[in-house]
Amino acid sequence: MSSIAPELQVAAWLNSARPLSLQQLRGKVVVIYAFQMLCPGCVSHGIPQAKAIRAAFDEQDVAVLGLHSVFEHHAVMNREALEAFVHEYRIGFPVAIDQPSAHGPIPLTMEEYQLRGTPTLIVIDREGRLRLSHFGRAEDMQVGALIGQLVGEAPAQQVVCDDTACSIR
Amino acid sequence: MSSIAPELQVAAWLNSARPLSLQQLRGKVVVIYAFQMLCPGCVSHGIPQAKAIRAAFDEQDVAVLGLHSVFEHHAVMNREALEAFVHEYRIGFPVAIDQPSAHGPIPLTMEEYQLRGTPTLIVIDREGRLRLSHFGRAEDMQVGALIGQLVGEAPAQQVVCDDTACSIR
Amino acid sequence: MSSIAPELQVAAWLNSARPLSLQQLRGKVVVIYAFQMLCPGCVSHGIPQAKAIRAAFDEQDVAVLGLHSVFEHHAVMNREALEAFVHEYRIGFPVAIDQPSAHGPIPLTMEEYQLRGTPTLIVIDREGRLRLSHFGRAEDMQVGALIGQLVGEAPAQQVVCDDTACSIR
Amino acid sequence: MSSIAPELQVAAWLNSARPLSLQQLRGKVVVIYAFQMLCPGCVSHGIPQAKAIRAAFDEQDVAVLGLHSVFEHHAVMNREALEAFVHEYRIGFPVAIDQPSAHGPIPLTMEEYQLRGTPTLIVIDREGRLRLSHFGRAEDMQVGALIGQLVGEAPAQQVVCDDTACSIR
Repeated sequence: MSSIAPELQVAAWLNSARPLSLQQLRGKVVVIYAFQMLCPGCVSHGIPQAKAIRAAFDEQDVAVLGLHSVFEHHAVMNREALEAFVHEYRIGFPVAIDQPSAHGPIPLTMEEYQLRGTPTLIVIDREGRLRLSHFGRAEDMQVGALIGQLVGEAPAQQVVCDDTACSIR
Repeated sequence: MSSIAPELQVAAWLNSARPLSLQQLRGKVVVIYAFQMLCPGCVSHGIPQAKAIRAAFDEQDVAVLGLHSVFEHHAVMNREALEAFVHEYRIGFPVAIDQPSAHGPIPLTMEEYQLRGTPTLIVIDREGRLRLSHFGRAEDMQVGALIGQLVGEAPAQQVVCDDTACSIR
Repeated sequence: MSSIAPELQVAAWLNSARPLSLQQLRGKVVVIYAFQMLCPGCVSHGIPQAKAIRAAFDEQDVAVLGLHSVFEHHAVMNREALEAFVHEYRIGFPVAIDQPSAHGPIPLTMEEYQLRGTPTLIVIDREGRLRLSHFGRAEDMQVGALIGQLVGEAPAQQVVCDDTACSIR
Repeated sequence: MSSIAPELQVAAWLNSARPLSLQQLRGKVVVIYAFQMLCPGCVSHGIPQAKAIRAAFDEQDVAVLGLHSVFEHHAVMNREALEAFVHEYRIGFPVAIDQPSAHGPIPLTMEEYQLRGTPTLIVIDREGRLRLSHFGRAEDMQVGALIGQLVGEAPAQQVVCDDTACSIR
């Protein structure tokens, strides 16, 4: 669970003026909530938990992203429907539409992260390492505890070299 | 609140082999839960309460019907999407699709019943009279109490006449 | 479940100016919630449900009584402690202290009703017949449905005779 | 909120073979949940949250203590009653009985910490500094986030000097 998290493969972003990447979020803890808009557990548990994470942490420390990973009922969980859902459920954080596959129902990020279904809570530390991939219900206290500890971890110092010298940042 | 409830105007039925009418349900208490599949309060409160009503009462005494009264996001809350929703949320009782209007966003039954929005709980007594139209959240105990009392009411005896005689049923 | 409910055996009443009896409550549906003040399930579920019943029904139709049936930790669940509990939990309906037994830990009403523990919900119909004795958690919808139906049942007519004549009440 | 937390003043400990002190817990995050056994908000919210904290964090990182700060109904919230409560509510962490005052109803630790009532959640960091004193309800996610961040904070290095030299620990 401590390898570098693979980059997201995204067809489109909602609630974000431009595409986001894990690369550019490096330095923050990144929380990705994989969901489907017609998945009951996502609606009753996952979305409220994602909102609670957003409310509990500073945006300087923690990025919260939704990931709409549709693997069933593709025809009706399209972008237009998702936009209505995001509006009705008052989701304010960026939502990525997982890139559909040309070869089957499982979209590409879901495939790459080997998700078992939705909702899945993914947590990536300040250094970009995958630290949690949890399918199903997780308790708020446990989730807050984990993310809090990752926030508390000081980012590792990086040695950066240019032509003349190396420095520690 | 004690006039005869107007007949439902329905474009199509899910979970029912044939169209239903209030007329043919006369003699039972009829519970109609008006909802929209992308309405958060319907999903978190209305649908679970409708299921709880279905579980608490005998089908001989109480009919439970869903009424999908779409007044916004019409394009994405279509029949195909509703079928996926009904499947994912394991709704077992009949669901009527409220007849869209040719003149505006409000469907015909919603208009006739003057519903303020969704979810709305409608309760009709054994004699076909409208006894409750409640918009928003209602407590399970209160709802159970009301429907229970209507179930407990003996249906009024009806005098039915044909060519030769009148009889009391 | 349809025999006449035995009379309560009560050491003292809280929230009632004078002793109550099932006999004098005949004609109403009577709900008795047996509890112990240090029983977690009673506090989290039973007491709130008893309050919800009190709120959902008219006092003319339904009497709600608490029954403090202490069968453990007798020394600390005494009358003074119960009074503090009733005050802190804002219990407004009458509470009977089940009469302790001279022979063992089980108080007399609990013994007579053969209760398995607390919380237990007891429901008696308008005619004084025991209709429900449910140990543990019960859903609000189911409870409201049952009591509602008993409220809806018209009290049976009684033939009452005096020296000169009989009349139907 | 960043001064050193004052030591607890305790009449007796439950669930602990010997008295505990903040001094000896230095190096861990310390969570103190002030409660009263007959306080509804403590029972419905505080105790479950304290248990959730205990379950979410390692005992090496976080100590969880109950503090029974009785300021009303003293006669019935005595030690014997508290022992029954701790048993019935399956509280496994140490519980301190706040030292009663000789001069009034407010016990000494409650007075010193200037608590407004119960439940109050107190959080002390690894260095013994008071970081939170929150009266009333707090969300699990927020609480987990805060404690998690305090756990993530490396304990500050301390310079310790004796007669011959100073060293960093």
